[in-house]
Amino acid sequence: MAPKRSIATVCLSGTLPDKLEAAASAGFDEVEIFENDLLTFEGSAAEAGRLAADLGLGISLFQPFRDFEAMPDPQRARNLDRAERKFDTMQALGAEMILVCSNTQAAALPEPERAAADLREMAERAARRGLRVGYEALAWGRHVNRWRQAWDIVRQADHPALGLILDSFHTLALGDDLAGLSATVPAEKLFFVQLADAPRLSMDPLSWSRHFRSFPGQGELPVPAFLREVLAAGYAGPLSLEVFNDEFRTAPARRIARDGHRSLIWLDEQAGAASLPALPRLDGVAFIEFAVDEAARAQLADFIARLGFRRAGLHRSKAVELWRQGGANIVLNAEPDSAASERFEMVGPCVCAMALRVDDAARTVARAEALLCPVWHERIGEGERRIPALRAPDGTLIYLVQAPEEGGAPHWEADFHLEPSKGASGDFLGIDHVAQALAPGLMDSFALFYRAVFGLTAAAPWDLPDPYGLVHSRAFTSEGGVRLPLNVSESSRTGTGRFVTAFAGAGVHHVAFASPDAAASAAAAIGARAPLLDIPSNYYEDLEARFGLEGMMTEALKARQLLFDRDEAGDFLHAYTHAFDDRFFFEIVERRGGYAGFGAANAAVRMAAQRRQRTGH
Amino acid sequence: MAPKRSIATVCLSGTLPDKLEAAASAGFDEVEIFENDLLTFEGSAAEAGRLAADLGLGISLFQPFRDFEAMPDPQRARNLDRAERKFDTMQALGAEMILVCSNTQAAALPEPERAAADLREMAERAARRGLRVGYEALAWGRHVNRWRQAWDIVRQADHPALGLILDSFHTLALGDDLAGLSATVPAEKLFFVQLADAPRLSMDPLSWSRHFRSFPGQGELPVPAFLREVLAAGYAGPLSLEVFNDEFRTAPARRIARDGHRSLIWLDEQAGAASLPALPRLDGVAFIEFAVDEAARAQLADFIARLGFRRAGLHRSKAVELWRQGGANIVLNAEPDSAASERFEMVGPCVCAMALRVDDAARTVARAEALLCPVWHERIGEGERRIPALRAPDGTLIYLVQAPEEGGAPHWEADFHLEPSKGASGDFLGIDHVAQALAPGLMDSFALFYRAVFGLTAAAPWDLPDPYGLVHSRAFTSEGGVRLPLNVSESSRTGTGRFVTAFAGAGVHHVAFASPDAAASAAAAIGARAPLLDIPSNYYEDLEARFGLEGMMTEALKARQLLFDRDEAGDFLHAYTHAFDDRFFFEIVERRGGYAGFGAANAAVRMAAQRRQRTGH
Repeated sequence: MAPKRSIATVCLSGTLPDKLEAAASAGFDEVEIFENDLLTFEGSAAEAGRLAADLGLGISLFQPFRDFEAMPDPQRARNLDRAERKFDTMQALGAEMILVCSNTQAAALPEPERAAADLREMAERAARRGLRVGYEALAWGRHVNRWRQAWDIVRQADHPALGLILDSFHTLALGDDLAGLSATVPAEKLFFVQLADAPRLSMDPLSWSRHFRSFPGQGELPVPAFLREVLAAGYAGPLSLEVFNDEFRTAPARRIARDGHRSLIWLDEQAGAASLPALPRLDGVAFIEFAVDEAARAQLADFIARLGFRRAGLHRSKAVELWRQGGANIVLNAEPDSAASERFEMVGPCVCAMALRVDDAARTVARAEALLCPVWHERIGEGERRIPALRAPDGTLIYLVQAPEEGGAPHWEADFHLEPSKGASGDFLGIDHVAQALAPGLMDSFALFYRAVFGLTAAAPWDLPDPYGLVHSRAFTSEGGVRLPLNVSESSRTGTGRFVTAFAGAGVHHVAFASPDAAASAAAAIGARAPLLDIPSNYYEDLEARFGLEGMMTEALKARQLLFDRDEAGDFLHAYTHAFDDRFFFEIVERRGGYAGFGAANAAVRMAAQRRQRTGH
Repeated sequence: MAPKRSIATVCLSGTLPDKLEAAASAGFDEVEIFENDLLTFEGSAAEAGRLAADLGLGISLFQPFRDFEAMPDPQRARNLDRAERKFDTMQALGAEMILVCSNTQAAALPEPERAAADLREMAERAARRGLRVGYEALAWGRHVNRWRQAWDIVRQADHPALGLILDSFHTLALGDDLAGLSATVPAEKLFFVQLADAPRLSMDPLSWSRHFRSFPGQGELPVPAFLREVLAAGYAGPLSLEVFNDEFRTAPARRIARDGHRSLIWLDEQAGAASLPALPRLDGVAFIEFAVDEAARAQLADFIARLGFRRAGLHRSKAVELWRQGGANIVLNAEPDSAASERFEMVGPCVCAMALRVDDAARTVARAEALLCPVWHERIGEGERRIPALRAPDGTLIYLVQAPEEGGAPHWEADFHLEPSKGASGDFLGIDHVAQALAPGLMDSFALFYRAVFGLTAAAPWDLPDPYGLVHSRAFTSEGGVRLPLNVSESSRTGTGRFVTAFAGAGVHHVAFASPDAAASAAAAIGARAPLLDIPSNYYEDLEARFGLEGMMTEALKARQLLFDRDEAGDFLHAYTHAFDDRFFFEIVERRGGYAGFGAANAAVRMAAQRRQRTGH
């Protein structure tokens, strides 16, 4: 039987009823009741318990019980009285287990045998009421901060109603692991397991824990390996999420609860406890689709034509056009009463979908559904193919386009009357990357979605200095050439912040086309009067100094408004367009050698130039 | 002659022209040009220099020049070429000194003598152009991270165009200080001094430096002691602010520049380099003034009457009433065409002013003016007193009320026809604290204002868990019983966030009255049908468990909707009212013994109850 899935109420925003409803609607089996959520609840503990039961939720744990063990008298006696009070509450609530976390008080005595005696006494009292006590090492416990220490105390106390609680954050934050767990701790003494991930931050564990925990798959800790050890030791109890996160506290509880459940499903797979339909093999971005109306279609077509795009097809049944430049495809969708027109009505011209090439669309859909992702069905004309699609966490559609047979045309093109090529078809290699701007608080949702459904891996986060505030950037990439930088800004004054405010939370902010020769592509664009972003001369002077580039080289870059970057593996040349209608913009990029980045070193120059373009000064 | 005051462009938001204008308008003498601001500037370096000169700004420094010294060839030669390029830029810009920060590269050699030789060569080349080089130890430098190491290298290089640059953050962040500076480094080798403060955070110095620096007086580092050592060593060059701060980057540049200048003026006083009119001696809050119209006046009067307030006076010439409960005074201002009515028009009923009792109002005004604070002059009727007032950073008025002669009535009361007391006048001791809610990014401005003008000291920051996000709280207090907690929430869903959104950025969110007997005050309020906030029963059960209170005691608290807290010094009893018109609210507090806090442990319960009161569930 699969382990039960549980979530601590502290992960979610709102009042206790809000939290319970969100947990139930996301499909959790159980909840940990965080004491504060009970104290702030206006009903009694029994009423809280009934509320959970009516929603079909078990109560896996009541927590936390702090600063209990190894205290000198009279605190010792008082703490036991306090425990009795909490046992009353638990019985009313219907919670069978309480979490005791290791003592943080300066007055706590450094004597494991006293801790063991106290916990034994507490467990004995709990057992009289049919309750159990789990003991957990806090990473900042005064004398006990490792699970092996906590286990020594539990072993020494030797009471059937006392067991060990493991928490991935407290273990992994200290650089520790569970090596030796199965050889040391009998399965029946593993009472409970809490799971949390976190980004790697070098700060004190308490602040790190209280503000920056995240769900497994959203951070950088080896939580799958942690869970493998837990399962290998024979643990078969609930797997429970316990995350303190400033953004989760303010986000809608239902979205966070669904993310949490998704993370546990993914984690089971990663730990080898369950299998999901396999990850897709990705092969780049097949096309980008813009929602337009007739007027915007004409303007946007003119805009991309200057980058060498030509109309390559008309949809068989809808007001949809296919534009193409070499291997890069753009779809302009002006069909009324469609998903695109709905989005257009809301925010005007925008990217409403992107299509990823996958080896098996049906398997990818099955994987996404197993991971609780909504699947989308567009109405289709007779004889047309339904392209399977998912909804990203912001509602953008992600079409799943199956790679064609060797040499054949992609199936989705069959929906178009393809036009014979009109002259040069362009030399773009395809779509290099698609950058999305997200409202604050959405990064973790997107991270988990791309990681779990598509197996994208996250590059190290990077801060981009907009003239009006920092933009936090994290790129998600696959081996198959899918590159999705995600940008978040706390400020509404930055370019990213302005975009997010105008575009209802999130959306594609720019699309980069891969060129085999950026100098030629940029020159052609300038020749076609494409509006390329002006780059200040000072930038090129610094470039010479920084990279020791030849003057001729920087002159050539400057004449084409090209920016330059270099990493250990190669060079990067890139140019930006003005924003279309103060909205999204395009980029031409050339990767030489194995350059892996996105020209982040040039972001300040680009952002200042965009601001000038927008405001005129 | 007073040292020149300088600010690095990186402290301020916007483009280079925005930054220069803000620095000039705030009264700075000079700026450090941060290279990125030049690279993103569309004009040439010479044009940037003219822009500064036209604004009357000198250029004190060009920075940073990174990763220069002790590199193996061929980087060594390339770095010298790079330096020549930057010297070109500096000459065009009109900057005479460049900052070289200690090398962070893995390839840097751990050989001080090579570093010295490289810096000597760079200085020699600089000297040929009439330029100078300053060397600074970065706190995260690869081999050089202490000023003493940097000095050893400068001494060894022994070139007149090479000197030492000191930075308070890099020194103090490592727990270091400047002990021995004056005995070690000749004054003429101290080329430049950069100043920054920071909150105490336990994180890596690089992240701490890049995101959390603040102006002196806004953080917790001993910057005044640092500056004393610098001045004792004979340094007479510019004092320059260099602050990387996520909030400053997005805030209006003029506000931040003025805060910066204020911080340097304050710092000069703290370091004994200059004197200001002395700090006021404070003696509590004399009154709180609400902006109302006729309808709101009647409603609010009814509300406070239930807390025992009675009308004590009518203003001689204006539609202003004085209400009083014991030692607590409230002014209701419905005068048209006044500062109060302006505020009322904008946001409705609100606190528009508070009055602080000071020993000398004129001296306090002089101090505030020396610290660049705007002073306010209200129009007055014939024979009335003008009460001097300052504007807090959010525009709220702060009246300065001089303490009366022994036994006399306060002067400001002379503006009222005082009414004979109608029955019981109440037993409140006065106003215990005034809590303000601030929009994100305003905490540092307020912190500096209260610290510099009034000498308030900051308590440790505290996070309050609203059901919809954390509220960051920091209390500013004085020995004279002025207590001003400031609250900021990143989320607009919290009570604080909602208030700030509705009230145009900042304002007084609640006012707490000091009672000698909170049980009696709360009982009287309930008797008068004052709307006290309902507290859930679960809270009282936990109280018994936590503090071992007698059941009778918790029953008495519960019957009066009183919350309870305890610290080492004493107990705290407090009750809250509902929010008036979904706006501000009131609190009744009793401090027993030396209890110093504000009941933060009860904030979660209070905030959840307020949310229930507002939404009805």
